[in-house]
Amino acid sequence: MPTHPLRAVAWRGDGAIRILDQTRLPGEECYLDLHTPDQVAEAIRTLRVRGAPLIGIVAAMAAAFAESLADLGRICDGLRATRPTAVNLAWALNRMLRRGEDAARRGEALRPALVAEALAIWEDDQHMCRRIGEAGLALVPDGATVLTHCNAGALATGGIGTALAPLYLARERGRRVAVVAGETRPLLQGSRLTAWELQRAGIPVTLIADAMAASRLRQGGVSCVVVGADRIARNGDVANKIGTYSLALAARAHGVPFYVAAPSSSFDREAPEGGAIPIEERRPEELWTVGQSRTAPEGVPVWNPAFDITPAQLVTGYITDRGLIAADELVSTLG
Amino acid sequence: MPTHPLRAVAWRGDGAIRILDQTRLPGEECYLDLHTPDQVAEAIRTLRVRGAPLIGIVAAMAAAFAESLADLGRICDGLRATRPTAVNLAWALNRMLRRGEDAARRGEALRPALVAEALAIWEDDQHMCRRIGEAGLALVPDGATVLTHCNAGALATGGIGTALAPLYLARERGRRVAVVAGETRPLLQGSRLTAWELQRAGIPVTLIADAMAASRLRQGGVSCVVVGADRIARNGDVANKIGTYSLALAARAHGVPFYVAAPSSSFDREAPEGGAIPIEERRPEELWTVGQSRTAPEGVPVWNPAFDITPAQLVTGYITDRGLIAADELVSTLG
Repeated sequence: MPTHPLRAVAWRGDGAIRILDQTRLPGEECYLDLHTPDQVAEAIRTLRVRGAPLIGIVAAMAAAFAESLADLGRICDGLRATRPTAVNLAWALNRMLRRGEDAARRGEALRPALVAEALAIWEDDQHMCRRIGEAGLALVPDGATVLTHCNAGALATGGIGTALAPLYLARERGRRVAVVAGETRPLLQGSRLTAWELQRAGIPVTLIADAMAASRLRQGGVSCVVVGADRIARNGDVANKIGTYSLALAARAHGVPFYVAAPSSSFDREAPEGGAIPIEERRPEELWTVGQSRTAPEGVPVWNPAFDITPAQLVTGYITDRGLIAADELVSTLG
Repeated sequence: MPTHPLRAVAWRGDGAIRILDQTRLPGEECYLDLHTPDQVAEAIRTLRVRGAPLIGIVAAMAAAFAESLADLGRICDGLRATRPTAVNLAWALNRMLRRGEDAARRGEALRPALVAEALAIWEDDQHMCRRIGEAGLALVPDGATVLTHCNAGALATGGIGTALAPLYLARERGRRVAVVAGETRPLLQGSRLTAWELQRAGIPVTLIADAMAASRLRQGGVSCVVVGADRIARNGDVANKIGTYSLALAARAHGVPFYVAAPSSSFDREAPEGGAIPIEERRPEELWTVGQSRTAPEGVPVWNPAFDITPAQLVTGYITDRGLIAADELVSTLG
């Protein structure tokens, strides 16, 4: 299976998790080895690793550090609390817990069983990415331009991404495709990460400020909008990076199809609709400063939700590892 | 006439123009004295002074440096080319040219006539700001929360602002009002300028990233959206800071009234509709870096329009120095 040249995560033979520190991009390409669950929790909380599928994989690898079943429970509890919105984290940790309990029941050695399960989660994710890419391939014919928000690419997964997967596959098949990337304030995952990984892969990318998206869509020539998801409720409402909802409204106003790309692990059958999804609110510092530069007066109050909810009515379809699902088929296909 | 404690511009007795250098805010409150038209042109181009009405005032003051009628023509041509979108600049320069020609025809001394005209333009602006404030006062009752974008406050005018004028007057009358300010990427006029001037005036302000506005409107409790304008076409289409259009779409989706505050000098009878208004495109560096920090990979292509067009159909009304004008009355009132 051809993979993306980027490796957002790797499992080292000696039992360390190697991550690309995404807070240092695009300036520095810096890899870190994590040896303890606490180091992993810190890396998730500070967004050194981010992206719903990737967080799940890295957390699963951290759970494989467990020495005992009790230890596994403690590690999973700690990791589960790091970020509330993405459901893949809980999904991956639940898989690890079940595998640990299974191993105990069968009298298997715990560590090898957990390591195998974490690697299986990673491998599954790589396959899911490619299947998502195949499901979305028809949406990006030769000459297509896709507008995206935040980063749902190779840097957000263990494979070739979710929202960007159809583009990488289209490119593999020799199609000329282009991307318009919203910079994604406050943490600039669009400019720091999406622009960086696309540039590296040789896919032409044009950067815009988030508030330019509506004007760009009015200008014409955008084939579709494709974004990732941190969690999708049973009715199809989507929790994704703040700004997604605004983009969906603009796409609707201009009749541009709006797609959400996500693996099965992002669908949460426990959440009946978007209102049931907890939205992480982050520190005001993210809006007070950019890097070393102060961008707002000292102490000014900030509202800083990391995600928003896009109602299912604004979604044209879901690009999933089970195929391209139209909004009105979602319940019958996945329900 | 009580004025705002801030002075974005002042005319010094010895014939220099004193400006508050807005590129240094919110970190430093630094005043510059400009002595030549070239210094003024540089200050306008680099956004040391910005805001459609304020640019008009400062340009008029620069035109008062003219030594002769031919000199006046050259100065006005140079200043007119600094920024293409705001119409107040051309409006103010045309007033200065007419006054200069008048003075020549009557055999008056040129300089005193030009200085008097520039100061009249400034004073008119202060009155216009207050009349705009009065026209919008009913929209901000006690307890109101207004969402705004960019800076159309005291820092954008010679007086108490346009979009923020109703809030300053409401505050004078003892009403409790609050503001939600979009930070306004790429140049962060919302966080650097609006948050700063409101904080200084004691009006509570909450800062959000631009892409959070739609979610904030969905949350409820926002009385109305009020923005400024760089130019308003005859049909009511509005050129304003990039992101305004996106905000108007979100306001419409949530049934929140959307108002545009502007003095008469921002209405352009020559432009039949928004498509006729030239949109300034600025340097890619504005999206590549924030202050000293690099935020995007080297050389990535950027689309960076400074303004967008909000169609008249999305505007609830215009808050002007001639009163509050409903969208469907615009042509009959101002036409």
